[in-house]
Amino acid sequence: MRYFMYFSYDGSKFSGYQKQPSKKTIQGELEKALKKINSNKTVSVHASGRTDAGVHALNQAAHFDLDKEMVPSKLMCSLNSLLPESIYIKSIEKVNDDFHARFNVKAKEYIYKINMGEYNPIERDYVFQYNKRLDVVEMERAMKYLEGEHDFKSFTKAEEEYDSTIRTIVQTKVIRDVRNVNLVVLSFLGTGFLRYMVRNIVGVLIEIGEGKRKSEDIIKILNAQDRTAAGKTANPEGLYLKEVLY
Amino acid sequence: MRYFMYFSYDGSKFSGYQKQPSKKTIQGELEKALKKINSNKTVSVHASGRTDAGVHALNQAAHFDLDKEMVPSKLMCSLNSLLPESIYIKSIEKVNDDFHARFNVKAKEYIYKINMGEYNPIERDYVFQYNKRLDVVEMERAMKYLEGEHDFKSFTKAEEEYDSTIRTIVQTKVIRDVRNVNLVVLSFLGTGFLRYMVRNIVGVLIEIGEGKRKSEDIIKILNAQDRTAAGKTANPEGLYLKEVLY
Repeated sequence: MRYFMYFSYDGSKFSGYQKQPSKKTIQGELEKALKKINSNKTVSVHASGRTDAGVHALNQAAHFDLDKEMVPSKLMCSLNSLLPESIYIKSIEKVNDDFHARFNVKAKEYIYKINMGEYNPIERDYVFQYNKRLDVVEMERAMKYLEGEHDFKSFTKAEEEYDSTIRTIVQTKVIRDVRNVNLVVLSFLGTGFLRYMVRNIVGVLIEIGEGKRKSEDIIKILNAQDRTAAGKTANPEGLYLKEVLY
Repeated sequence: MRYFMYFSYDGSKFSGYQKQPSKKTIQGELEKALKKINSNKTVSVHASGRTDAGVHALNQAAHFDLDKEMVPSKLMCSLNSLLPESIYIKSIEKVNDDFHARFNVKAKEYIYKINMGEYNPIERDYVFQYNKRLDVVEMERAMKYLEGEHDFKSFTKAEEEYDSTIRTIVQTKVIRDVRNVNLVVLSFLGTGFLRYMVRNIVGVLIEIGEGKRKSEDIIKILNAQDRTAAGKTANPEGLYLKEVLY
């Protein structure tokens, strides 16, 4: 029986999504809990993709197979009772055996939170503490150049091997908060993302916001198809996997 | 030389404000850092009041004396560089020797954050996860009954000894967030607060929001002048010391 679930987690409490020996990871915790439910037989959890250490998820998606049939709502309760409080299963449903949480993804939305105001110790694991003003209008202009199908080779890890580094960003936007003018949320909706792609894009956007680069420079960086053309990888704590659409 | 500072901290990272042997506390960290600055001579930090374990501060206030005169901006930088990232000094100024951060307080504002929506693992140390609907209108009505001068004996720790348990709540309000209808923020501005007073009030307000008590019941609880007339103490993680006014 194949099950599909949406879940959220606090990335600051884990060494990333992917299972690693003797480290606390989200996949590791999920598989440990599911093994107990599955009569002590190993269960493999297949997520829509991994997230790096410190990156959060509001709606991560995954599928897994169990030997027995279970009522999804009961399975969800059992799982939540076995998991640490930093992971929460939001929904579970039965799916066909040919459904795959990674291969069937239609689109994903990532958001990146930046605090341009004073350093705030309370949100230091949840919002990137840039703590200086940024030219957000110029950053938004640069984001618009990224919309559409592009080769994002400049924005992925240099050593990473991909069949293709072409991806499509469907929509970008900047979300401002009237209550907190110092909070900037950058949103990226795309059909697929390369490893470190959002954080490498945000790294360049921050340089644009600082005035070190112009918004049009992002086109040159794309065209260079070279990681060294971009800038620093932005910190993980500002990044959230917001939605996975099928 | 007497100095006065405002500072913020993430209460989830400490065993409360007040110094305790072999525990990580906010006062302990401040005094440890100040001792280094004060040529290894002990410095006592006098805050506007303590906060309990898990309670946060957006603008806590304190004074302390140093043997030498220092430029406040430089002192602030030294202190921030010595402190853990979960405490942040926001401002420091010189004050007269007769200024006292506790005795001179004119008013304090506390806020309490409640999530009525789905459990969110990312905010579990920062917003009380009630995760069910509450009748916020009825809660707000009850809060209004608390405005003015009252004997808040029913809302403090039973064993606590006070000369007087009479305090004045100047203003209460409920702050809603148009972006997140499930977040409720209760605000209490008062000239002084007893120990556990806000959390004990919120405990009763939640029962009112659940429909277990009516808004007018809060008057009976006040009049009873007995801790057992109130309800449970609300969790610490939702509480923030927002402002201290002099």
